[in-house]
Amino acid sequence: MIEEAAAAGKHIFCEKPIARTLKEIDKALDAVKKAGVKLQIGFNRRFDANFARVRRAIASGEIGEPHLLHIISRDPGPPPIAYVKVSGGIFLDMTIHDFDMARFLIDEDVEEVYAAGAVRVDPAIGDAGDLDTALVTLKFKGDALGVIDNSRKAVYGYDQRVEVLGSAGAATVANNHPNTAVISDAASVRRDLPLNFFMDRYLDSFLVEVTAFVDAVLDDKPTPVDGVDGRAAVALGIAARRSYEENRPVRLEEIEA
Amino acid sequence: MIEEAAAAGKHIFCEKPIARTLKEIDKALDAVKKAGVKLQIGFNRRFDANFARVRRAIASGEIGEPHLLHIISRDPGPPPIAYVKVSGGIFLDMTIHDFDMARFLIDEDVEEVYAAGAVRVDPAIGDAGDLDTALVTLKFKGDALGVIDNSRKAVYGYDQRVEVLGSAGAATVANNHPNTAVISDAASVRRDLPLNFFMDRYLDSFLVEVTAFVDAVLDDKPTPVDGVDGRAAVALGIAARRSYEENRPVRLEEIEA
Amino acid sequence: MIEEAAAAGKHIFCEKPIARTLKEIDKALDAVKKAGVKLQIGFNRRFDANFARVRRAIASGEIGEPHLLHIISRDPGPPPIAYVKVSGGIFLDMTIHDFDMARFLIDEDVEEVYAAGAVRVDPAIGDAGDLDTALVTLKFKGDALGVIDNSRKAVYGYDQRVEVLGSAGAATVANNHPNTAVISDAASVRRDLPLNFFMDRYLDSFLVEVTAFVDAVLDDKPTPVDGVDGRAAVALGIAARRSYEENRPVRLEEIEA
Amino acid sequence: MIEEAAAAGKHIFCEKPIARTLKEIDKALDAVKKAGVKLQIGFNRRFDANFARVRRAIASGEIGEPHLLHIISRDPGPPPIAYVKVSGGIFLDMTIHDFDMARFLIDEDVEEVYAAGAVRVDPAIGDAGDLDTALVTLKFKGDALGVIDNSRKAVYGYDQRVEVLGSAGAATVANNHPNTAVISDAASVRRDLPLNFFMDRYLDSFLVEVTAFVDAVLDDKPTPVDGVDGRAAVALGIAARRSYEENRPVRLEEIEA
Repeated sequence: MIEEAAAAGKHIFCEKPIARTLKEIDKALDAVKKAGVKLQIGFNRRFDANFARVRRAIASGEIGEPHLLHIISRDPGPPPIAYVKVSGGIFLDMTIHDFDMARFLIDEDVEEVYAAGAVRVDPAIGDAGDLDTALVTLKFKGDALGVIDNSRKAVYGYDQRVEVLGSAGAATVANNHPNTAVISDAASVRRDLPLNFFMDRYLDSFLVEVTAFVDAVLDDKPTPVDGVDGRAAVALGIAARRSYEENRPVRLEEIEA
Repeated sequence: MIEEAAAAGKHIFCEKPIARTLKEIDKALDAVKKAGVKLQIGFNRRFDANFARVRRAIASGEIGEPHLLHIISRDPGPPPIAYVKVSGGIFLDMTIHDFDMARFLIDEDVEEVYAAGAVRVDPAIGDAGDLDTALVTLKFKGDALGVIDNSRKAVYGYDQRVEVLGSAGAATVANNHPNTAVISDAASVRRDLPLNFFMDRYLDSFLVEVTAFVDAVLDDKPTPVDGVDGRAAVALGIAARRSYEENRPVRLEEIEA
Repeated sequence: MIEEAAAAGKHIFCEKPIARTLKEIDKALDAVKKAGVKLQIGFNRRFDANFARVRRAIASGEIGEPHLLHIISRDPGPPPIAYVKVSGGIFLDMTIHDFDMARFLIDEDVEEVYAAGAVRVDPAIGDAGDLDTALVTLKFKGDALGVIDNSRKAVYGYDQRVEVLGSAGAATVANNHPNTAVISDAASVRRDLPLNFFMDRYLDSFLVEVTAFVDAVLDDKPTPVDGVDGRAAVALGIAARRSYEENRPVRLEEIEA
Repeated sequence: MIEEAAAAGKHIFCEKPIARTLKEIDKALDAVKKAGVKLQIGFNRRFDANFARVRRAIASGEIGEPHLLHIISRDPGPPPIAYVKVSGGIFLDMTIHDFDMARFLIDEDVEEVYAAGAVRVDPAIGDAGDLDTALVTLKFKGDALGVIDNSRKAVYGYDQRVEVLGSAGAATVANNHPNTAVISDAASVRRDLPLNFFMDRYLDSFLVEVTAFVDAVLDDKPTPVDGVDGRAAVALGIAARRSYEENRPVRLEEIEA
């Protein structure tokens, strides 16, 4: 589809993943390059106010050099098994957003990943050859370390947080809730659950994302999330899967070979 | 304007206050009644997710019978003195929103008010015959007590909170911030200031409010905030001013006399 | 007892209230003065880390000149009716701590009080001639305004908070909980109730308080809470009761007359 | 020292690590067993109110079966290099507390670890052959996954948090602060830094820990943290070091071989 759109001279907004193999991606990116059209990949979370604030904390030096990164990214419930089977697996379907977030926040490439995984939510996911619970360790080029925490089921709702420790401080974000009300009664001090899933939680980010694409086209500027970003996240997903299967750290250069 | 619109058979959405005297308001409401048109008053805060949640906590019995109410309502900075002079005074210009919030949350009329006030923010506001700092005590019909805290200047931004103690629990809301990020450094653990003023803080509520008006018109339903609500808030503002001037509790029936 | 202890040359630590009439208090303070002994009144909350931090925020200029003060002070449940009958009434038994807190935080005397009260928790408290729910407005000498919120029953536990708005910022304290754990499940995001009552909540403050008394005696320094403080809080309690009974603001100079 | 104390028939309270090799530990534990004396290892954090609450959330089923564990454990600043050189390395000196916490919370043994590490805080620590920044992945027997995040320097103070995702909910704890005061000014909404280091942060836990030891001796009960616990944490530290050096996951059975 990217190749056809590029051939037609259309600017392209493409959801993730671009494709599931680097070969296909490279062909698509080549077509984009030749056609001279713009390509933006749908990593909407970069446009979320919380994560953008953490990025600013790093970019501005407010928390110094990044040392340790945590990304917590949990869905409220697993998708249907039919979807799981064609999803490309958790690393390309779900973690891919977190791989992009890691690159966006630290603004560096990841050199090595180690993926530990388990089937804890639903055995049917395991039967379909996939995982529903994972911890992925990342080693960045500049020696920062990171970990991505994924679960297909957080019963309290969509859990979307990051935390960065830097040499001069730390930045951390909490979930978004539908309101700030706190109810205290004889049993507990409590608040309503976080926004349940991406259509609520990331609504604003989708608007900012699409506006950025339109602006890039209208003003002939580079898109804020390009083919290189889309490709890098897929490469990380492939490396994570291999790491899980072989239970060893996998360097990204292996994936390129 | 209300009378003209009513005479023209138009449904009316009117910002607060309807007018500054009950006589004028009664004339306007009469015109609305005779014309059979709808009237909605712009108390947008009723449509805010935080306050609506507190209302639900009371209405559903989640916190039992209301005993004590706090409304904190502080602007980030005072309006120009030219505006202060024609504003009708803090009670009719600013507190009026809080009077409506009190009636909305407790769902009862207020029988008596006592207003303590001061000029602490800017002497020019005092020179203009107005106050910039106030604490207004409310006695509700059903024996709940309330207090409204107003300041024309909270340097950290728009401060919009309520808190209700009931027989079975309490509900309290915090301010809305542009993001949930927390930055920890060698000096403090901190977050960005709350949303600065009403155009940011109440943006969503304006949308819900206008939608409710349109729905009321299209579906021929009663508007959710009507002339009685608009009138009651003005009566409370008049009573508060008299209370402040005479330094004594003022019963609402005095204002009606 | 104070007079006897003073006559015996003993330094004195006395719980609040010193007595229920200013005449008795003046006699006791006279005896203390003549004997040259030290007297400390048991306003332990001044030694609590939370309130001490708010005092520092004001004293250091961190939040500028104080404009508005809120004191929330609610018990987890009412005392036995037998106690209520001999307690001296809510203003001398319970609010007295808050009157002292108000003077401690703002570091100024209160010139006028207005007390609104109700019986909402237990009709038997009303039958005993007392109140269980109150809002007391305070006017300080320097034109700051304050409000004390009292209830004999907050079902979620001991509720002990203050909040000060100043010209350069605000300081607010939350309740203390037995732990910081937050539990998120399919129903809510919640934490355990605040520490239930004063023996848990103020344990540390009692230690600091007594240490301060011992230090004052050993080092021959003035006690940090003296007879003037103990007397002022009683005067405020008497004024609040009169204000409630006559439903009008009462100036402290009336009480002295 | 353990062998001598055991030979003398004394009950033993021993700080961590028991020793740096399993051989030495086994000799010590043997001596304890033969002498029939009690041995408690100084994993004080088990007695902290926050972590104990998370343990209860798991043990009681409040959050279901544990799936994912995060332990954040960061010191306010690195120890002197002289100490680093004799410390046994970060995994046996610092992470050892977190290894015990992992076993305590999940109440299962760890079967495999993978340690990623870096020198980010001070090159001198690297020159001494040690690390100052680490992420250690844990695979528990029952298929839960965990990660420990260590840094020798969090400029905002001692950072001691855990978070557990279970099948029915999550439990997370925040840091302890010296007070709950929040200061809002024209720049930010902030609070004072967390308690700076273990003597402040864990003061209460030391008292509870020692009381538990005394109770075990007086009442002739098993100690709550025994030699098996002390040994397991050391084995994990040795495995983590090997994992880091060989950059591969290491199974605990390797360490036993």
